[in-house]
Amino acid sequence: MNINTGLKNYSVKELPHCKIHGRTDTSQDPLPLFWTGSGLEVNVSGTELWIEVEVDFDYHEPWAACRIDGALMSRQMLLPGRHKLCLFRNMSPEAVKNVCFFRELQAMSEDNACHLLICGLQTDGEFFPVPERPYKLEFIGDSITSGEGTYGAVGDQPWIPMFMSASRHYAAMTAQALNADFRLISQGGWGVVCGWDNDPRHALPAYYTQICGLAQGETNEALGAQKPNPFKEWQPDAIIVNLGTNDNGAFDQPQWKDPVTGEIFQNRRNPDGSLERGSVERFEQGVIRFLKLLRSCNPNARIIWAYGMLGYELTLPIAHGVETFCREDQDTKTTFLQLPNTTADTIGARFHPGVKAHERAAGILTEYLRSIL
Amino acid sequence: MNINTGLKNYSVKELPHCKIHGRTDTSQDPLPLFWTGSGLEVNVSGTELWIEVEVDFDYHEPWAACRIDGALMSRQMLLPGRHKLCLFRNMSPEAVKNVCFFRELQAMSEDNACHLLICGLQTDGEFFPVPERPYKLEFIGDSITSGEGTYGAVGDQPWIPMFMSASRHYAAMTAQALNADFRLISQGGWGVVCGWDNDPRHALPAYYTQICGLAQGETNEALGAQKPNPFKEWQPDAIIVNLGTNDNGAFDQPQWKDPVTGEIFQNRRNPDGSLERGSVERFEQGVIRFLKLLRSCNPNARIIWAYGMLGYELTLPIAHGVETFCREDQDTKTTFLQLPNTTADTIGARFHPGVKAHERAAGILTEYLRSIL
Amino acid sequence: MNINTGLKNYSVKELPHCKIHGRTDTSQDPLPLFWTGSGLEVNVSGTELWIEVEVDFDYHEPWAACRIDGALMSRQMLLPGRHKLCLFRNMSPEAVKNVCFFRELQAMSEDNACHLLICGLQTDGEFFPVPERPYKLEFIGDSITSGEGTYGAVGDQPWIPMFMSASRHYAAMTAQALNADFRLISQGGWGVVCGWDNDPRHALPAYYTQICGLAQGETNEALGAQKPNPFKEWQPDAIIVNLGTNDNGAFDQPQWKDPVTGEIFQNRRNPDGSLERGSVERFEQGVIRFLKLLRSCNPNARIIWAYGMLGYELTLPIAHGVETFCREDQDTKTTFLQLPNTTADTIGARFHPGVKAHERAAGILTEYLRSIL
Amino acid sequence: MNINTGLKNYSVKELPHCKIHGRTDTSQDPLPLFWTGSGLEVNVSGTELWIEVEVDFDYHEPWAACRIDGALMSRQMLLPGRHKLCLFRNMSPEAVKNVCFFRELQAMSEDNACHLLICGLQTDGEFFPVPERPYKLEFIGDSITSGEGTYGAVGDQPWIPMFMSASRHYAAMTAQALNADFRLISQGGWGVVCGWDNDPRHALPAYYTQICGLAQGETNEALGAQKPNPFKEWQPDAIIVNLGTNDNGAFDQPQWKDPVTGEIFQNRRNPDGSLERGSVERFEQGVIRFLKLLRSCNPNARIIWAYGMLGYELTLPIAHGVETFCREDQDTKTTFLQLPNTTADTIGARFHPGVKAHERAAGILTEYLRSIL
Repeated sequence: MNINTGLKNYSVKELPHCKIHGRTDTSQDPLPLFWTGSGLEVNVSGTELWIEVEVDFDYHEPWAACRIDGALMSRQMLLPGRHKLCLFRNMSPEAVKNVCFFRELQAMSEDNACHLLICGLQTDGEFFPVPERPYKLEFIGDSITSGEGTYGAVGDQPWIPMFMSASRHYAAMTAQALNADFRLISQGGWGVVCGWDNDPRHALPAYYTQICGLAQGETNEALGAQKPNPFKEWQPDAIIVNLGTNDNGAFDQPQWKDPVTGEIFQNRRNPDGSLERGSVERFEQGVIRFLKLLRSCNPNARIIWAYGMLGYELTLPIAHGVETFCREDQDTKTTFLQLPNTTADTIGARFHPGVKAHERAAGILTEYLRSIL
Repeated sequence: MNINTGLKNYSVKELPHCKIHGRTDTSQDPLPLFWTGSGLEVNVSGTELWIEVEVDFDYHEPWAACRIDGALMSRQMLLPGRHKLCLFRNMSPEAVKNVCFFRELQAMSEDNACHLLICGLQTDGEFFPVPERPYKLEFIGDSITSGEGTYGAVGDQPWIPMFMSASRHYAAMTAQALNADFRLISQGGWGVVCGWDNDPRHALPAYYTQICGLAQGETNEALGAQKPNPFKEWQPDAIIVNLGTNDNGAFDQPQWKDPVTGEIFQNRRNPDGSLERGSVERFEQGVIRFLKLLRSCNPNARIIWAYGMLGYELTLPIAHGVETFCREDQDTKTTFLQLPNTTADTIGARFHPGVKAHERAAGILTEYLRSIL
Repeated sequence: MNINTGLKNYSVKELPHCKIHGRTDTSQDPLPLFWTGSGLEVNVSGTELWIEVEVDFDYHEPWAACRIDGALMSRQMLLPGRHKLCLFRNMSPEAVKNVCFFRELQAMSEDNACHLLICGLQTDGEFFPVPERPYKLEFIGDSITSGEGTYGAVGDQPWIPMFMSASRHYAAMTAQALNADFRLISQGGWGVVCGWDNDPRHALPAYYTQICGLAQGETNEALGAQKPNPFKEWQPDAIIVNLGTNDNGAFDQPQWKDPVTGEIFQNRRNPDGSLERGSVERFEQGVIRFLKLLRSCNPNARIIWAYGMLGYELTLPIAHGVETFCREDQDTKTTFLQLPNTTADTIGARFHPGVKAHERAAGILTEYLRSIL
Repeated sequence: MNINTGLKNYSVKELPHCKIHGRTDTSQDPLPLFWTGSGLEVNVSGTELWIEVEVDFDYHEPWAACRIDGALMSRQMLLPGRHKLCLFRNMSPEAVKNVCFFRELQAMSEDNACHLLICGLQTDGEFFPVPERPYKLEFIGDSITSGEGTYGAVGDQPWIPMFMSASRHYAAMTAQALNADFRLISQGGWGVVCGWDNDPRHALPAYYTQICGLAQGETNEALGAQKPNPFKEWQPDAIIVNLGTNDNGAFDQPQWKDPVTGEIFQNRRNPDGSLERGSVERFEQGVIRFLKLLRSCNPNARIIWAYGMLGYELTLPIAHGVETFCREDQDTKTTFLQLPNTTADTIGARFHPGVKAHERAAGILTEYLRSIL
């Protein structure tokens, strides 16, 4: 390889201009990327750009992807260690390229060792300001919002990072259509009140106010994951909550028993298969509580509870929760939106929404956001 | 024209086999077609088929269309008088053709003289049984369900029959995809509790139990329109209620004053533009009352309140009404489904959903019905 | 019906403004519509518009359709006699409506009695100029260009007018996309050198220079069908020749024997199934001769031989013919374009291209014409 | 990272089962991947699979991609040196995964140092036979067939590997639809008789009989690139020649002067812009010569000259060449197919066909191949 001797090193802190995507502790150096879709965006001239990352994990390896001028260019598995990845070579030196390197893997509550840090960039070009986009969107969800099944063949089953993404994703598509910045806060299998397994610890609202509270262990703590999220620094124009699918799934799962207290948790069905009233009310209360929390942290955001990509069964309980919240708190900026269910034509890997299902949901959501923002 | 001397006349009553679509008084001869989509379906051999109709109106002329073997073949305005229309000529004599002649114009509450009667058929063929289809669907709605704007250019404005149809219609598309029979009960501008103009007489539920109660005047009465509908004879597998759009529109219209009692009716907004609480509650009560009525007439039907093709603003009140009904009456067969809003890409004439909007709604609805029927 | 007393009669000759579509003898009154897609276009104000037609036939009844403001509104069978058809009622009196009434049936070489004449219009409005469109297109073809199979169910077989159209048609779609006027010259089953049945009398070039030479018999002659076409009055910007499909079909049909001379005609295959050389050369000569004729009548037109909607087998002979013509006559304005073959997904009635196949062909053709006009 | 201690090393030669895609010298170890789309396919059980590659280049770095069970999973730049890439981790041990690792960069006639070698695989699973697919397809082309512009944003200009691919590619899409194996032989800027720059050395036919003759220099020679291709070992069912676009471009470029002999080469236009006769005839002769060569190497293959994705101007010369070849050599298995031109809606980076253009071409080609194979 002909060596480019004009490269210069920049730590993230040394970058004269950049945009950091996703909740993180910006005082850290290197910079941790906790949530899927988190990343670093630069506008840079020059012929060549490298990124240096530090990676580790016990079980679940992170994947990363890169967009150049908005087009997805690469996607790859990251192995443990400190690596330099070349993001482009031999481009026109004067042209300013927009480059966004981002995490394709959700925060991993099940692998405390898993982390992906950006150490710095190398280039022979210069950095230019990355302008604010007109809108900021925050998506809160489960496996759908972790992009499970957006890669992989129909029929593939393992629960592994390779099949998850932030790149072929309804949030990314919506944001691109609206020219918006976006953040994802998601955890596969989790819900509003409990996870798919009836475990009430697998509920996302409990971690909403921390930077990335569900990334645990010493390393993540040192990286700032447990710190309170500085909401004032990034107020979204709209929050899209795509939760409820796992609370729904729990109605068909065995009860969960607290290993410490012995307490039981279960969403139950009536003998005729309909949803048991007490379980539904507990779920509705969870919806209301979470909306109150979201509103307290985001006073001016439009909040859209968007549901349906893996079934419509909790439509009425969610809508009822949303309606109750709006009525009781006289909130006029919170609504419910149904996203189209996944069909045999649009399914992806792991029986999850495929690219076409994400495109369809993004279409409905984009149209709606366009009408209210 | 070479004359076909082999034609034989049949009044509707004389037909050895046929299927009548739409609510009507089957004791009548000629047979009235009250609602849009109402019609006569036969399976017939022979080379030629004619239909004789009797038509009149003061202002709004009916249109009719014909499908042969499921494919739309003709669509035309009907003029006053008694006419013979040729539905096909020179077809293969042995082949059994499926022919459905149907009304393209909604029942006309504003034109008591308007009627379309089928006097009989003429053919050189024989009639064969028309089998039951696997499903029966009933659609209840407003101008969307009267197909307003499904014909005509974007930008065309007059409120005339020509722009309405049952042929390029989400109900027809859904029924075709599911191989279902269907009935339409619809009136443009009408709602659950009031019409677009705040007039509480323009509410469809008041007429649900009659064959076609909103077709008034002596002629329609003589044709049986005011008779109670014989629900037992045709029980739908699913009822799709697509109402609320005009109740929503009324929030932006002047109050209505009862010309007799002087009473006032108005859906109101708060100063900040949000929906006034009392108006919303009255609407929710109307949703609940209508669901109770529908359930009492159709004990086993799935009821789907499907809403959104011209805006989502009443989503939460409708969903709340549906949820309250289900909870209070322990009804497990009633749900809410959002249909995609109409966009600049899918709009038709009269700022109403165009063919593409109907196709999109039919897609979502078909997928949903397929999953529950 | 409330009677409109403000209607005024106009013969076609009395119309202050109108546009006549399709080759015809404009000195006639009433005005004959010979070819499919022929019609009368007006821009008219007023609330109401009627058209008076005179129709007869022995066997094949004409169909007609009407577009208002560019949108297809009605389509119906026409019965023998003199009829008034109402094209619109109760529209806004001031608005100027664009209305085009047109024939949906090809000229009928097999039914000398078949004719459709426009006697005049009635309206309470006024007529306004119908501007020239930017382009003029002439399409010459066979059953594909007669729109066979664009109506009717897949599997329907009879060769009857009902299944033919100029409305759901690649030419109409192309013209609408390009804002062009267009003429169709077509005859189902006919070819360049012979018809599908090897009959060399079923070749369209022989009739190209007459107004509608293949409409024969006394009536048609009196209507001017046999007159030479006044080419100078309407010079197309592009001629699309979509012929060859029936010459190709003839390779698989029995020989044709001239009933008078006993002469034999047949396109033959070699024992291995390939096309026999002599038959191909005769066809190529036919292509060249027809191109010479087209060029002599249309000195400046782009000529596009567009082929493939029902199979590609004659691609090379056609292209060779076109190439030879261009080379020998130093013609730089004549080309070959392949149109996509019809597939199981796009087929219509009578094993002919359906609406989707016409849309696909129109897409390719529109893109091409846009690039050269 | 938890270490997998069960991995076992296999050189390519040691693999009990595998399929090698693309022309290469199978006696080599490590195995060179010369052409874009070349790669190694295995069916393997186990939880984990690694590949070891050896890479170098002066200027143009190779990219590689990986499909698992037919779904594109990763795509990345390869840097100089010997690397282990993990293709999957933590999959179900028993399930047999289909994995194909392949080159995304065309053979690079301009960078003799550029090479990509597969050294071996590591896995804890076992290898299973990779069955023959029902069809074999060979694609011969230029930048279109090198996938230029299939990655990158519209408007991106640099001629760099990042924007080329074999993954988002009409050949890959066609092969996937037909369940076929395929090979690509392509070079951006090259043609039948000369390149875009009128340089007659940039003509692909001269290199057709070698494994990869245009990959030059000592390294490539040692890797076997200059060896004769063993045609008998892989006979395609169909050869798709997508050449002519650069011969066409050369008509608008300055003449080329042989640096040694001073000889001039240029495709010329007439003063009126039409193609000069001599240049066209030389091109046609080139088409004929290449077809003779292809037929001599592939006696039974269907040969389809497929042209048009970047303009139709040489349609007639190509078709004439094909027709002449078929006639003179009595070849009945060679045809011409037009592929849809790229439009503003379907364009990609570098003013080349984008993904949508490749999809459209693949659609036409797939339908055609399905009808003849």
